[in-house]
Amino acid sequence: MKFTKFLTETGEKYGVIESNLVKEIEGSIFGSWTFSGNTYPIEGLKYCPFVKPGKIIAIGLNYRSHAEEVNKALPDEPMMFMISPSAIITEDDAVILPHPDHRIDHEAELVVVIGKEGRDISEEYALDYVFGYTIGNDVSDRVLQKKDQQYTRAKSFHTFKPIGSIVETELNPSNLEIKLKVNGETKQYSNTDQFIHDVPKIIKFISEVMTLEPGDLIFTGTPEGVAPIKPGDCIEISIENIGTLINWVK
Amino acid sequence: MKFTKFLTETGEKYGVIESNLVKEIEGSIFGSWTFSGNTYPIEGLKYCPFVKPGKIIAIGLNYRSHAEEVNKALPDEPMMFMISPSAIITEDDAVILPHPDHRIDHEAELVVVIGKEGRDISEEYALDYVFGYTIGNDVSDRVLQKKDQQYTRAKSFHTFKPIGSIVETELNPSNLEIKLKVNGETKQYSNTDQFIHDVPKIIKFISEVMTLEPGDLIFTGTPEGVAPIKPGDCIEISIENIGTLINWVK
Repeated sequence: MKFTKFLTETGEKYGVIESNLVKEIEGSIFGSWTFSGNTYPIEGLKYCPFVKPGKIIAIGLNYRSHAEEVNKALPDEPMMFMISPSAIITEDDAVILPHPDHRIDHEAELVVVIGKEGRDISEEYALDYVFGYTIGNDVSDRVLQKKDQQYTRAKSFHTFKPIGSIVETELNPSNLEIKLKVNGETKQYSNTDQFIHDVPKIIKFISEVMTLEPGDLIFTGTPEGVAPIKPGDCIEISIENIGTLINWVK
Repeated sequence: MKFTKFLTETGEKYGVIESNLVKEIEGSIFGSWTFSGNTYPIEGLKYCPFVKPGKIIAIGLNYRSHAEEVNKALPDEPMMFMISPSAIITEDDAVILPHPDHRIDHEAELVVVIGKEGRDISEEYALDYVFGYTIGNDVSDRVLQKKDQQYTRAKSFHTFKPIGSIVETELNPSNLEIKLKVNGETKQYSNTDQFIHDVPKIIKFISEVMTLEPGDLIFTGTPEGVAPIKPGDCIEISIENIGTLINWVK
């Protein structure tokens, strides 16, 4: 099922996408909801980031090929860091570069949307805590990432975390083609079957440390092919069975 | 003014401390409020963490003497990272060590409670965005901090972020004696006049990257004297004009 969030005259609403219609829902997206009866054509709506996340946890170096690309040893455990929720934007919003003289890279990522509160979650039951999956771009300032060592600043600037407005609830997160184009040219092209740590392992790992809550986002790492972006670029990320996220750089 | 948060039969309430009474307030702690008329004796109340923070931002290496202690160069800019809000506990709650075989250190810190939303805040107006100040302990697993390089895991375990239940709104954050004792023995003893980056500079720096929101916490760094803790230890942190935070280790 594909869920989305969009703007109406009475505020932001969630909906379900069925063919070329968005069927508005009412109630709690992470609890119980029903159809309101309102429907909208899919074209022409103003879409919103699917959640205002409580927290964003990101996993570094999670594709074998990207670890090789940056000459890092494969981690025996996931490596996590956190990003400010205020960095979130969605499709058609602009990525704004506060330091255009720095090298700023795109990073196409599968993003997990948590649907249920939990801690100390086992791998076996981990996917029960997932609401669904969307597309993300973990835009990163390489100069500040290197300077700070800690990744939070380099990855938390306002507009540095585009996510999709569409969340797919039914798919296998361990076998999805993921592709990123800049100005039509393919830069990243891989499959989540290259994950070093799969989604259940990541959820177990994170939830041993912290409590996951509905609306939290997990950025699952990027494959090889990260490259600089500059003002005027059009970034297009596609993940199989989810869709495409397009953002322009300013 | 000293504010606090405590538990009553009808839930968690905020209050103002006046001599040996807590005067309950109603309304929004970060907006407008009035006294409810209920008062409680200060002794015997069950206190709560002052906020469930949206986010916790921490500053590394912010006392000259601590930077020397760990052989690090003085940073020309603040170095920030983020910690999971689910790590928060308050006075009388136990700090629980999931890896008691690791070296786990205490870190006494002045904690800023943000009171107003803002971004791109100038140093001149930075303190207008502060609600007040409390005491914090940035408990850190040194083994995982070294292994991960990123500090989030080492500092985010459940119970690893004790904060006070008392917030003082009127003080000068740049001249406060800060002291930490373990089992009665003084381990850390300094003054916030040793800050490399003062509170206005930190707020300017963070808010250039991310939006600060009411209830967000900033851990401002720890002075020299960090040392390991073990189950059974009693940790007592005092900051001038705020009070004392006591936690036991399990």
